[in-house]
Formats: sequence, C-alpha cells, structure tokens
Amino acid sequence: MLKTVGYLGPQGTYSEEIVLNLYNKGEFRPIPFIAIDAAIRAVAAGEIDECIVPVENSLEGSVNITLDTIAHDVSLFITKEVVYPVRHNLLAQTSSRSITTIVSHPQALAQCRKTLAAMYPHAQVKPVDSTAEAARLTAASDGSYAAVGSSKAGEIYGLTVLAADIQDNAANSTRFICLERQPAGPAAAGKCKTSLVCQINGERPGRLYNILQEFAQRDVNLTRIESRPARTGLGMYIFFFDIEGSLAEVNIAAAINAVKMKCLWYKNLGSYPTYNGAK
Amino acid sequence: MLKTVGYLGPQGTYSEEIVLNLYNKGEFRPIPFIAIDAAIRAVAAGEIDECIVPVENSLEGSVNITLDTIAHDVSLFITKEVVYPVRHNLLAQTSSRSITTIVSHPQALAQCRKTLAAMYPHAQVKPVDSTAEAARLTAASDGSYAAVGSSKAGEIYGLTVLAADIQDNAANSTRFICLERQPAGPAAAGKCKTSLVCQINGERPGRLYNILQEFAQRDVNLTRIESRPARTGLGMYIFFFDIEGSLAEVNIAAAINAVKMKCLWYKNLGSYPTYNGAK
Repeated sequence: MLKTVGYLGPQGTYSEEIVLNLYNKGEFRPIPFIAIDAAIRAVAAGEIDECIVPVENSLEGSVNITLDTIAHDVSLFITKEVVYPVRHNLLAQTSSRSITTIVSHPQALAQCRKTLAAMYPHAQVKPVDSTAEAARLTAASDGSYAAVGSSKAGEIYGLTVLAADIQDNAANSTRFICLERQPAGPAAAGKCKTSLVCQINGERPGRLYNILQEFAQRDVNLTRIESRPARTGLGMYIFFFDIEGSLAEVNIAAAINAVKMKCLWYKNLGSYPTYNGAK
Repeated sequence: MLKTVGYLGPQGTYSEEIVLNLYNKGEFRPIPFIAIDAAIRAVAAGEIDECIVPVENSLEGSVNITLDTIAHDVSLFITKEVVYPVRHNLLAQTSSRSITTIVSHPQALAQCRKTLAAMYPHAQVKPVDSTAEAARLTAASDGSYAAVGSSKAGEIYGLTVLAADIQDNAANSTRFICLERQPAGPAAAGKCKTSLVCQINGERPGRLYNILQEFAQRDVNLTRIESRPARTGLGMYIFFFDIEGSLAEVNIAAAINAVKMKCLWYKNLGSYPTYNGAK
C-alpha cells in the first residue's frame, strides 16, 4: 500500500508543489482536499496517512485554520517541517488585453497587495478558494481575469505569465508541516524543533511572563510564540510555542514539565526535524 | 462641516452597524470603503477625519490587515475601542428551496464553519468581499444561494432569515477601534487602554521575555500580546501590546520607556477609552 498524503488541492496549488517535491514519485499517493482543515481531519479519522499543510507565511503570518484545527479539533503530531520560498506569478490568457478582475486565494492576494495595486489600480481583487481555482477561473473568463498563482497552475490551465515574482516582499517563504497520528521517531541528525500548545491559567496575557520564565531559566530557545483565541471570549488565548531542540534534551523536557503545571490544558505536538525546501 | 467616518462598506456590513450605533445621526457623515486598509489610509492621507475598523474577533483572532496597516503603512492613533457582540444570520430568498452555495466574508464563514457544515454538509462555501456583498449576491442568485450576514443586510436586500445566531460560539464578539491622526485627549472617566507596537531587537521571540519583564516588574497589566511578521523573513516578528491604563500613569510610562530602549523600533498608538457596544 502506498502512503497517502493529503494537501490543499486542486491540482496546481502551492501545497501540491510542496508534496510533489517532498516525496519520490511512485512512493506515495497525493490526495487533494478542498480545504486545509478537511485534510487535517482526514488524518485524524484514519482516512489518509498524513497531510502537508501550511502553518505560517513570512508576510501574512499564521495560517489560522491550521493552528485552530490542531488545537481544538484533532490530536495529531507534527512529524516534519519544511520551509519553502513562495514565488507568485500573475497569470492571464495569452490574448488578454485589459485586466479588470484579479483572483486568487486570499493569502496570495494579500502577499501581492501593493504590487497589484500599483500595476492595476482599478482592477477588482476577488478572493477565491485556491490559487488553482483562480487559474481555472482565469482560463474560463472572457480574457479580463488574471490569477495570482504558481507557474505550475499557469501550465495546467494554459495561461501565460504576465509578470513573475509579484510578491510585495522578496523574503517570502511559507512553513509547511506534516501531521500524523503518531509522533516522529527518534530525531535524525540535523535541526529539530518541538511544539506545544496550551491555555494559560488566568485570563491575562500578563501570565505569559511566568511561562516564558520557565523556558528562559533553563536556556531553552523559543523560535516562535503565537497566540490564538481560546474561543471562550475576548481576552482569553491559547499559546503555541515552537522550541529549538528535542524533547529528548533534559532542559527542554524539564521546562515543558514546569509549563504543564501552570496551564489549564496542554497538548504536546511532538519533536520533529526541520528542512529547507529551497532548491 | 460634519465629521467624516470611514468604515468597511458597502451598506449592510457589521462595520456600518457599529458606526451607526456609535454616533448620533446628523452629527457625522459615514463613508464606506471597499477595504479595511483603504479606510485606514484615507485617514492618514487626511481625506476623512477618522475610521472605525475591526481589530480582533473572539473566535477568529486578529484582523491582520488592520494590524499590518497600522504597524507598517501609517502613523495614526487609536482614540477609542468598542467591543461589539456579533450575531450571524443565514439569509436567503423567501422562495428558495435547496441551498447549494453559501457566501460571505471569509471571517464570517469561519465563525460559522461548524454550524454551516452541520446544516448544509454538501453546500459549497464561497468567500466574497463582505457580508453585504454576500447578501447582494444571494438576492441576485437563482435561489440556490444563502448568505451569512447581519439582519440589516437581509433587510436591505429583501432576504429572509433562514436561521438566526448561527455562529459556532455564543461568546462571539469583535473589538473595533477608531483611528485618528491625533491622539485622544486626556482620558475621561472609565476604562482606558494604551497600545504600542514594536520590533524586538533580536530575531528570537525568546527576547520577548525581557520585554515582558519590564511590564511585570512594574505591575503593569497587559490585556493582549499579538505577534505579526516583521516582513523581513520567517522568524522575525513585531509585537502589539495592549496595556490596562493610561500613559498618564507613572508605572506605565516608566515601563514603556524601558521597553523603548530594548526595541529596534517602537510606535506609540496612544491611550484611549474603551466601551462595550452591547445594547
């Protein structure tokens, strides 16, 4: 049986590009989903083996649906992380003359907002479900549409690249994570991270100071802290912590144990290797 | 001259509802904008006097475009905060029989995701620019569309309420802020907050601990900490702090001065009164 890997489809999305780069052809079966949380839930339900989903972009920040689903709806482990540079293209029909509507996934549109406003100040910018769907709509339009998407999406739908690298910021990259039902095995050589999510006892983020103290006192390096709503009312938050190193390290295990004692609830998201996906 | 107040239009959005509630009729002129950041930029450019924009929702978290525009693109002050309960309705044509497509603003759809999936497991969920645009599309559809929006939007477009209060969580409220070119005058009686945004010297969020220490040592209460990408690469963040109290308080002024010294850059967003918009 080939390993099944879920991702945000359809064909031609950035997520598909990642998945095809990450695994060797013939060694896995890619399964497209219509939404990120649907892919994550399918892993939790045992319908697929794992999924590759975006979790953070360097311009737009967290992918909230990924964080919220991991925190509130499933019990899964992060088993690897891949950082991948994002390069956006403006795609249109070869014969198109004047662009009046620009379509793409809301996050892709946000990443190119300034460039698009400068190039097409009067065009209407419309969010759609995915960059691939945007390419499909553009191909099906009367020629007045353009899509922000990958060059792969352009190829699939026979579109021409009007402009390459239209992202507002050259340092644009996205972190993807792999989610599985079991934690990763003993860490291989190379960079490793550990992630956890918890709700801090007490309503005020001021309490975060006491949590950070547990890490700082033990020289544990945090690479990221992200708060998301606890969903119980304004002013109540859960926190995601990314830690440099593995749970197998004594100081990290001790810090996490101390943090656990101070939390309303706590979820270990596992230790996992981290890769750079740039080629 | 009437005061001009910008908000995310068109007619029938939640933002419009807030603005109409907040000011007395005949004392201001509401100016709808097609995007949140367009309203904020219009204040900075002196085209309008102020704007009312959403900044945080209790289910979906930060409104990133608001935070990013305040931090990176303009120099404005928060002059008041209003917390407003959000009640979503499912709106459709009176004669509609089977709903196959549900449209709304992405955040409204996200706030009703579970309820909608339970009610209409097979319907396609489509993000559009605003809840008002969703109502307009629904009114113009062949009857197969439903929109998530305010009851006001339903009225404007002659739609019927298929289901009321369809938000996934009853504790759903949104914080709106008013932005102006000058800070608010001396604080009136009642609750007051102070906000600032800064980039911490050093790439690692671990440094956040040193910043929080400045507040904790002086018994300054933080009501919120939010990180956003610094836009210079993955792993570099700016932080928004909301503080209970006013800059006129000695311990708060001292803490902020100490924080300033530890930052790459720092922006004072002002002290301002906070109101509860529930009626």
